Amino acid sequence: GGDIAAGKAKAAVCAACHGAAGISIVPMYPNLAGQKEMYLVNALKAYKTGQRTGGMAPIMAGQAMALSDADINNVAAYFSSLK
Amino acid sequence: GGDIAAGKAKAAVCAACHGAAGISIVPMYPNLAGQKEMYLVNALKAYKTGQRTGGMAPIMAGQAMALSDADINNVAAYFSSLK
Repeated sequence: GGDIAAGKAKAAVCAACHGAAGISIVPMYPNLAGQKEMYLVNALKAYKTGQRTGGMAPIMAGQAMALSDADINNVAAYFSSLK
Repeated sequence: GGDIAAGKAKAAVCAACHGAAGISIVPMYPNLAGQKEMYLVNALKAYKTGQRTGGMAPIMAGQAMALSDADINNVAAYFSSLK
């Protein structure tokens, strides 16, 4: 599992769309709070490697490309830890 | 928005991986309960049209291809309605 505190520090940019506590206020953007950590890791890696191209994928690809594998693990741990 | 009751009827097959109440017990599979309806619609359509190829996308593509656009709206409404 990732480092929740390190993930929180990296996740500030995510809040613009996914909400400060991982609950989005925009219908198009998914809630992340309490989501499965492994799923979040896999989703971020899929965006990063271009395996997701629909919906907001162009935005998420750019975001994910700015994250190392460790960052992805940490950000996923952080959002998964939120209730 | 979709028809929650119709969505529930269509969603029985989803429960195997995503849980009877939309809370998965498998780390790889995302929770769906309370997720944004529009996001779920967009995600299912992305799987259906091959715009998601990572992770469990081969499974989800097959599932989504069995759903009409109305089914997708209804299933999304159902899972979004769960707490």
